[in-house]
Amino acid sequence: MYLLGLDVGTTGCKSVIFNEKGDVVSSAYGEYTLYHRRPEWSELNPDEVWTTVMETIRASVKNGKVNPELIIALSTSVLGDAFIPVDKNGNPVYWSMTTFDARATEQTRWWEENFGADEMFRITGQPLTFTMPIYPLPKIQWLQENEPEVYRKTAMFLCWEDYLNMKLCGKPVTDFSVASRTMMFDITKKEWSKKILDTANFDEALFPEIKPAGEAIGYINRETAKKTGLSPETLVVTGGHDQPCGALGAGIIKTGPVMDATGTVECIGVLLKELLLTPKIRLQGFAVHHYVIENEYFMFGFNPTSGVILRWFRDNFALQEKEEAKRMNIDVYDLLTSMAAKSPIGAKELFLLPYFEGSGTPNFNRQIRGAFLGLTLAHDKKDVLRAILEGLSYELRNNVDAMETHGTKITELRTIGGGAKSEFWLQLKADVTGRKVVVPNITEAAATGAAILASVGAGVYRDTGEAVKAIYREKATFTPNPENNAVYEKYYGVYRQLYEPFSSLFKNIAELSHE
Amino acid sequence: MYLLGLDVGTTGCKSVIFNEKGDVVSSAYGEYTLYHRRPEWSELNPDEVWTTVMETIRASVKNGKVNPELIIALSTSVLGDAFIPVDKNGNPVYWSMTTFDARATEQTRWWEENFGADEMFRITGQPLTFTMPIYPLPKIQWLQENEPEVYRKTAMFLCWEDYLNMKLCGKPVTDFSVASRTMMFDITKKEWSKKILDTANFDEALFPEIKPAGEAIGYINRETAKKTGLSPETLVVTGGHDQPCGALGAGIIKTGPVMDATGTVECIGVLLKELLLTPKIRLQGFAVHHYVIENEYFMFGFNPTSGVILRWFRDNFALQEKEEAKRMNIDVYDLLTSMAAKSPIGAKELFLLPYFEGSGTPNFNRQIRGAFLGLTLAHDKKDVLRAILEGLSYELRNNVDAMETHGTKITELRTIGGGAKSEFWLQLKADVTGRKVVVPNITEAAATGAAILASVGAGVYRDTGEAVKAIYREKATFTPNPENNAVYEKYYGVYRQLYEPFSSLFKNIAELSHE
Repeated sequence: MYLLGLDVGTTGCKSVIFNEKGDVVSSAYGEYTLYHRRPEWSELNPDEVWTTVMETIRASVKNGKVNPELIIALSTSVLGDAFIPVDKNGNPVYWSMTTFDARATEQTRWWEENFGADEMFRITGQPLTFTMPIYPLPKIQWLQENEPEVYRKTAMFLCWEDYLNMKLCGKPVTDFSVASRTMMFDITKKEWSKKILDTANFDEALFPEIKPAGEAIGYINRETAKKTGLSPETLVVTGGHDQPCGALGAGIIKTGPVMDATGTVECIGVLLKELLLTPKIRLQGFAVHHYVIENEYFMFGFNPTSGVILRWFRDNFALQEKEEAKRMNIDVYDLLTSMAAKSPIGAKELFLLPYFEGSGTPNFNRQIRGAFLGLTLAHDKKDVLRAILEGLSYELRNNVDAMETHGTKITELRTIGGGAKSEFWLQLKADVTGRKVVVPNITEAAATGAAILASVGAGVYRDTGEAVKAIYREKATFTPNPENNAVYEKYYGVYRQLYEPFSSLFKNIAELSHE
Repeated sequence: MYLLGLDVGTTGCKSVIFNEKGDVVSSAYGEYTLYHRRPEWSELNPDEVWTTVMETIRASVKNGKVNPELIIALSTSVLGDAFIPVDKNGNPVYWSMTTFDARATEQTRWWEENFGADEMFRITGQPLTFTMPIYPLPKIQWLQENEPEVYRKTAMFLCWEDYLNMKLCGKPVTDFSVASRTMMFDITKKEWSKKILDTANFDEALFPEIKPAGEAIGYINRETAKKTGLSPETLVVTGGHDQPCGALGAGIIKTGPVMDATGTVECIGVLLKELLLTPKIRLQGFAVHHYVIENEYFMFGFNPTSGVILRWFRDNFALQEKEEAKRMNIDVYDLLTSMAAKSPIGAKELFLLPYFEGSGTPNFNRQIRGAFLGLTLAHDKKDVLRAILEGLSYELRNNVDAMETHGTKITELRTIGGGAKSEFWLQLKADVTGRKVVVPNITEAAATGAAILASVGAGVYRDTGEAVKAIYREKATFTPNPENNAVYEKYYGVYRQLYEPFSSLFKNIAELSHE
């Protein structure tokens, strides 16, 4: 008996087939293009994505020589924020604007000025600011204003989960976690917000049905079964937004552990037992979503430039190491982190401020920029690399500590994503945050989370708790070294003091580029 | 008819033979070791240096097939601050502590607390602070306290000029500019300061005779003539400290042009018609010396980490460029500055604060450290390189502007040293400072200055003015581009605003390493 977790992201999709114990039986990966037709635009072509998704599912079934009839259920984890306008036949009438498509700045500003960020947060749990024009709400308005013909032809605006569910089983159903990212969902009432739809003058019929995650909605339709190699007996189950799906894949079913998903961006998420929507949470930039367990919630922070700073460093200042790693047939990041490990604790008083695209939570300042502070002639490449990893770890702690101030005790970090590969970095995170760091024994957390939801929807397990107990396993644990933790306590103290004066400096620098 | 300019520095010496028009006829270079017997010590072995000097003079005579009898005069340019204790026969009894030998911190602090920096500046023109334990005064005290036997055996404490003159012609005579760097010379009265010597309990007989620069003092003695290949007919003339010698070599004989000597360190010096010893000058860290023209003075500022930041970058982050330059058979710095030239003006709002060893004049803060501020993912190596050159140019302008506030209008920059090789950097300095940048047509400014002094002492020219007129020529001139200058006006405005808040940040960072 198998479960299929489908993870559809911004630049590619994964189809992972698990047995009921959570072992990966087969998997496949497919890529598609993220288009930038204009500099500030960022779009997917829905037809291209759907074709790739079908091919990838087919490849995963084929690669593992899996009998499709044994795949009892499928569920999807999807990128948030992106949506597809479809006509009455379900055909896309426009491309899918993704999170970092920045065209709806003016529309976002309009909501900020006319509706108010406090009210918006109270209803949707999403922080509204014109510097983050990422949500479907203002983007649909942009279409209304700039592409009236497209808007007129649109029968429904679907997020990727609903779109895929429609393609898979004919039912464009979404779940609470994906709906949470539209900025139109009343997170308390669990329905599309009448107040927001009225203000936007959107007909509620434009938006899909919403269910909790992990609910069965139908079976694979014949045409899709044929094209994907799946069986029409396979159940389609509501999945969720990829961040809570990742958290679920990392075994998070109660408050305490925090998900730390370190890739290009670093996403930090913690489960909330109660819905918390204070102004302070909003001002810190945290978003509050429905979790992929009904009546539980997810507070979600981020550092927009985490692993990407390492990549930036690699591509600009470590060309020799790139070649050396190739010659040695090792991962260049392993080489770079092993260099960082040779620098002393504190990197000889060198600090990275990792705000290469502004700061995310909890300072949430889009104007600030990155810096290396404390440079001397004694610093070499090893020190700079260690300063990068330490700076990212200080920023992680900054988020974890801020989350705790909202009443959620954080006991451990569950790390997923590319950053979970470096033992040095993992130990550093433990030493800096003073918390145990656990690496789950999974390769694809979001797909695992989707498979857990599929298992629940299909009744394989009674609930997510039982499913996680059967499927989740730990691979490694990193415990804070008390001595290092004491030293980092002091360094982190300085790091925190840097922010305020530093952010003032940047008001001046920001003006230069806007003159 | 030839003139010999001998330039004795911290790590090597140059012997340059000129004709009376200032053309280089022959030259040679010799290296010696800068010893660090303890981490904070920095010493030369006087015997080794003297042997190398003799060999280098011999090589310059031999290389150019110069008839030694035609060398009518010789003068020396020397490193400042360093001194040699000699016994009654003129033999060294200890090694020569150089500028950055930091052992006399406590003694320097003693003067600061018991004598006062204001009074010290008023008498000697030298800024006294325990963070700069660079002068002979506290170092001789260190010997008195820590090496009483050495102190007892010492008949005289000689700086390098006096020591070399003793070796060359038997007369340990120094000049006003070198004496200015001892922190024992009364710059107004032009004599060893009785008040300072009394306070230190030093016998005046321990210190040499002092004359103006450019005065004949004797002929090469037979033994030295034999060992160096010089003629006993060659006149020895008082030279000077290498910075004013360099300025003289760059043709500076009146107020207006400022010397910008860019090497590892960047030294900025301007001629003063009147002795200026205000508290503000001291607090900004400027030193005021006698110039190598009698009754004229020299205000002297510095950036301790100028070219050395480029070298740091080259050695840590440009290994590929190093190899590429080798393959292309070009200077790696030419490659690096050509890369910088491809980054846009302002380096995409990236700023370097070049305080890798604290800031020199005019902020004079030994606690501050370096930084790159304003980093984004869009910055690449070219931008970082441009930011380095721009940051160094802003800091140069900072010095030039500060010097002007003391009443000395600065009309142009005369650039010497390794930094004068890069046309891009020279144009940048013109654009940032808004002043014409002139490159003199000489390779070795300090040796040229010494040769000018030799020519005056030998009566070849009536005075330094006539000598400079005959010898000094311009090689190239860089005029500010008004458009770029206007842009840099804004960037420099931001750069200046960064200092204050940034220096506060560093109080916290500095405490980390001192705990």
